[in-house]
Parts: sequence; structure tokens; C-alpha cells
Amino acid sequence: MNTIPDINIVPFISVDNMMKLVLKVGIDTFLRELAGVIEEDFLRWETFDKTPRIASHSEEGVIELMPTSDGKLYGFKYVNGHPKNTRQGRQTVTAFGVLSDVGNGYPMLLSEMTILTALRTAATSAVAAKYLARTDAKSMAIIGNGAQSEFQARAFKAILGVDQLRLYDIDPAASLKCQRNLEGQGFSILICKSAEEAVEGADIITTVTADKQYATILTDNMVGPGTHINAVGGDCPGKTELHRDILLRSDIFVEYPMQTRIEGEVQQLPSDHPVTELWQVMSGLADGRKTDRQITLFDSVGFAIEDFSALRYVRSKLAATGFYERLDLLADPDEPRDLYGMLLRCEASMLSTSPQKIVS
Amino acid sequence: MNTIPDINIVPFISVDNMMKLVLKVGIDTFLRELAGVIEEDFLRWETFDKTPRIASHSEEGVIELMPTSDGKLYGFKYVNGHPKNTRQGRQTVTAFGVLSDVGNGYPMLLSEMTILTALRTAATSAVAAKYLARTDAKSMAIIGNGAQSEFQARAFKAILGVDQLRLYDIDPAASLKCQRNLEGQGFSILICKSAEEAVEGADIITTVTADKQYATILTDNMVGPGTHINAVGGDCPGKTELHRDILLRSDIFVEYPMQTRIEGEVQQLPSDHPVTELWQVMSGLADGRKTDRQITLFDSVGFAIEDFSALRYVRSKLAATGFYERLDLLADPDEPRDLYGMLLRCEASMLSTSPQKIVS
Repeated sequence: MNTIPDINIVPFISVDNMMKLVLKVGIDTFLRELAGVIEEDFLRWETFDKTPRIASHSEEGVIELMPTSDGKLYGFKYVNGHPKNTRQGRQTVTAFGVLSDVGNGYPMLLSEMTILTALRTAATSAVAAKYLARTDAKSMAIIGNGAQSEFQARAFKAILGVDQLRLYDIDPAASLKCQRNLEGQGFSILICKSAEEAVEGADIITTVTADKQYATILTDNMVGPGTHINAVGGDCPGKTELHRDILLRSDIFVEYPMQTRIEGEVQQLPSDHPVTELWQVMSGLADGRKTDRQITLFDSVGFAIEDFSALRYVRSKLAATGFYERLDLLADPDEPRDLYGMLLRCEASMLSTSPQKIVS
Repeated sequence: MNTIPDINIVPFISVDNMMKLVLKVGIDTFLRELAGVIEEDFLRWETFDKTPRIASHSEEGVIELMPTSDGKLYGFKYVNGHPKNTRQGRQTVTAFGVLSDVGNGYPMLLSEMTILTALRTAATSAVAAKYLARTDAKSMAIIGNGAQSEFQARAFKAILGVDQLRLYDIDPAASLKCQRNLEGQGFSILICKSAEEAVEGADIITTVTADKQYATILTDNMVGPGTHINAVGGDCPGKTELHRDILLRSDIFVEYPMQTRIEGEVQQLPSDHPVTELWQVMSGLADGRKTDRQITLFDSVGFAIEDFSALRYVRSKLAATGFYERLDLLADPDEPRDLYGMLLRCEASMLSTSPQKIVS
């Protein structure tokens, strides 16, 4: 491999290497550092090219491209959402992403992003809660104990010290799995028999269910004053988790209004219903939580800049960890205008190493 | 590698494997078969989701995502265009692409597309000329003898039997390179000292220059009656090759009007100037060439469906040629909802095979 000049090569983080990279850094450290990079990028929000993701919808689900650029780096994520996939042993959501150099357009990193998206979603939730939840928040209800639940738990503990969990899932096996996976990490965990029980006394409510439908995971009377709601599961047209009345009682914070109004919980509200952009709270341009009795709602749908931050962060870890492969993704002829000549030279070398003529 | 279950794995065609695949199939056969698949997809144009490409422009160039779907397969290409890249030994255009299953959103193929784009662009040009050039066309001027030129020549010979070439480039070395690369392929080649000389008597004029500017490679008096112009190089806002007067004298054929009016030669004309969609000519819904004295112009900018066709075609060649690698791109936990558990099991296996504790 070392004979291939670097100009050809794009570092690639496979699923296996992503796991090793995360574990080598340490899950808590990874989440904290990633949260720091996300915060850094939210604080320079206005330097980014922003566009709602480009979605290709079908009956079974959606495939989306999420590009963004800060003028120096360009990143995009490919991500699908197919709720029925789990029936065939597939992930509902898989993803990969690319980071490129704006100056020459060459990709600088290709990475799996199924695991990375789980981590960045959790880190973003925790960053939002840092600005929106009560500072004394210690307990969190997690409604929906699927693939994202443990990442949320780890991020809220690593970043905010939230260590009391109240789990609920319509499938009790999912809650047991979540509890088992979080063993030995210093959580106090209660598995609940209903969403009502789970939210009882919780300082933070995280909803992270997966069905593609208008669901009502939370009704209005379940949410007490002072709660911070971290609504993660409602993230595409027709998929919401909260009753409309909760939205009307909450102060709503979003990533990118143009996208959230289509995909988030606020799709249930008129398009002029007031929402506050999270980056403005972080920058001090808008208020976050003002009182201990206020209900704050982070209507999270996931935005391209978070993926950009995540790619930027893992790329910064490559040299130190070495957990990547070298992918021969870019053509590199000896002379840039001689792409065809590269093909001819490949032919010549195939002929010289093969007993048979390969091309007719 | 064989211990990794298939659900994880995305076949990957590297640059090296793409060259081997093309050479194994044979360049002529490859171009002819690819042209057939492009034609097949143009004939079912209306089944595709179409959108202009999503471009991220900078001073140095552009990075674009080009998605499309036929409802069963989804494809997208990442492509950059950076005219100054050649000064640093980089390609002006590099690309890669992905083909996915709409039913579950999983990628089925990741492929280099720098070489593949060169082939599909040439195949598309030849397909268009099949419908638009005079049937007795034998000679072609190629103005701009860079990376795309030999591919154009090979496609026009393989698909239409055009074997007399008149080459011109502002840099004579480029023409010599083109001539040298095409030696032994049955072409009669004349290197010309000016664009005027190159187009003299040519049945087809291919313009494929690379500078990002409003250039005038062809002026009106240079183009005789009956000519087919294959305008390949003008493909983004601010980059055109033909004088406006030629456009006014030609019948103009395009891939996807909404994109071509932004990026093609017709960006010089009012937005209601009549253009004909190539797929309609192919389907018999619109006229192509009507007389031997008509000037036809294919204002080619490259459209997502052509890349979709190209990805679909190379994927059909994988099993027979074996020129691909298996990429561990997709997370595949034992239980779909247990992504975090997969991370834990990776940790356990790292600890059991390593003398040191890796995670703190």
C-alpha cells in the first residue's frame, strides 16, 4: 500500500475501526470532546452554508443527503431511515459520511456514521440540555429503549452528571437490554411499566421511539413544571411523539427552523409558531431557560452541522489512534489531463503480469 | 473477511479495480454496453425522481451531490470541479458514487467515479449523437484535448463508427498526448493549429475545454450547415464555450432543462428559449435531426440519471469480474436495537486479545 502516493488515498473508518477508535478514546471522553466540537461549530453557526437535507422518500422509508460547508471544509452524510428494517435484522438507520477540502474538492475522510450518528445525536442532546435543563437535573426518563437509548444515557451522565434513569419501552425486553448494557457505569436505573411512571418526577424526559407515525408518547398532563424535554424520535414528516398541547405549553428550541418545521414535533404547529434557535442561546443572543418552572423542549431532528462536527472530530483522532484504512478512491494519473493514459498503463501492467491477453 | 456476514458489507470498486474491470470487459464493449444502459434509463425517464444537483460553490470550484431514484434503486454521485487543481497535480474533476436499495436504504455499491464519469460522459455524448448527428458522420473535431478527450473519441468510434479526428488544444502537448494515447485504435488523426482548422469539414464538433470562464471556443462563422455540436465542457454557471449566435442558429437538445438552463450553454439565452429533452427524442415524442443542413447542439452538462445508469451497469459486472473489495461500512449488531451492545462486545474482545486495558 505504501507505494500508492497519498494524493490517491482517502482515509476510511470502517465500523470495526470506529468502535476501536471510540473505545480507545473512551466513550465518556469521546462524548465530552465531541460535545465540545459541536458547541464550537454551533457558536460559529453563521459561517456555515445551510440547507435542509435532501430527502428521497418511499413507502418504506427515506434516504437523505445532508451537506454543509464552513468555506474551508465540506461535509455530507448519507443516512437512511427504514422503520421496518429491524424485522429483517437490519438497522432502522445506517449512515456514512465524507469530509472534503473545499479548496480542491478532494475527500479527506470517508467514515461509517451509524455509530458516529448515535454518538453525535446523544452529544447534541446533552449540549442542548446543558443550556436548557435545570442545572440541578439529576434524573432522566428515557421513553423508547432502542439503539439510541444507551448513547443518550452515557452522554447525559458524561456531560451533565445525570445518573438516575427511568426507562420505559412498549417492549420490556428493550428496557432490560438497555439496563444490562449500562451496568457498571454508575447509573441508578428503574424500569417502568408505563410512560406515565417513567416521567414521574424526572427532571429531563428523553423521547426516542422509532415508529414512523404520529404517536403520542407524552400527553400534556404527564409533564410537570420545570421539565426539560429532549424529543429525539420525531424526525421526519408524519413522525411525531408529543401531544400538541405540550408543545403549546413549552418554550421550543430547534437546530435549523427551516428543517425542523418539516420534520420535528413543531410540524404539528402553524409555521409561524415561535421557536428559538439553539445556536442563538449558546451565543447569548437568545434566552434559554429563564425560570425553574418553565418547560423547555429541544425539538431535535439532527442537522448537517452536527455531522460535520463529528467528522471533523474523528478525523482529528486518526493520527493518534491509527484506526483507519487507506482507500484507493481517487484517480491519480501521473499527469492530471491524462486519465485515459492511466488506463493504458494499467493495461500494459496487466499484460506484463498475466499469461493471457486480457483485453480483446 | 469471510467471517463478516454480508449484511455489513458494501462492495467497493477502487480506482485500481475500476481500471481492471473496464479493461477486462474491454473499453469498446464497456462503452457500448454502458450506452445501452443509459439509453434504457432515458427511455424510462419519467419513472425517475429528478432534482437539479445540489452544489456548494466556492471561489476555487464546486462540490456537488447528484441524487436520483427510480423507486427501486437510489443512486448519488459526489463530484467536484476545481479548474486550478491540475497546477498541483490533482484532477479537475474527481468523483465517487453510491447505489442503494430503496426498500431498506442500505448501500449496495460504493464506487470510484472519476474514471466512470469520464466513460459515462463519453457514452452519453455518443448516444445523443446517434439521434442527432447525420447518419453518415465520420469525422469529429475535438477542441480541448484534456482528460475527457480520448474517452469521447473511443465512444464515438465504438458506438457510431466515427474514426477521423481533428484535434485542437491551446496547449499542443495535450493534442500530442491525445494522439499518442489513441494510437493503434484505428483512428485517422490530424492535429490542428487552431480551432478554425479543426472544425473545417468536421461532421461533429466536440468542445471539451476546462477553464472556468465564459470562453468562446466556437464562433458562429466556424460552424457549417449539417454539423452536430457536442458541447461537453460548459457545465456550470459562468462556464460556457460557444458564442451565443451559434446557439440561436442551432436546435438545442438537453438532458434536464431545469439544470441545463443554469449550467449549460443555454445559460446565455432567455429562460424560455426552446430546448428539446433528449429522452423525448429517444422515445419518439420529439424530433431529433430533421434535415441534413440543420445544426444540432447537444448542450451536455451531465445528469444524475447517467451516473445512476453507470453505477447500475458496473454493479452488473461485479460477480463476473470479481474486481471489487468488501467494505465494512454498515453496522450490523446481532440485534438491530442493540447498537451500543455491539460496542460493548467489541470492547470485550479487545480486552481479551490485548495485554493492556484499552479503555479507562
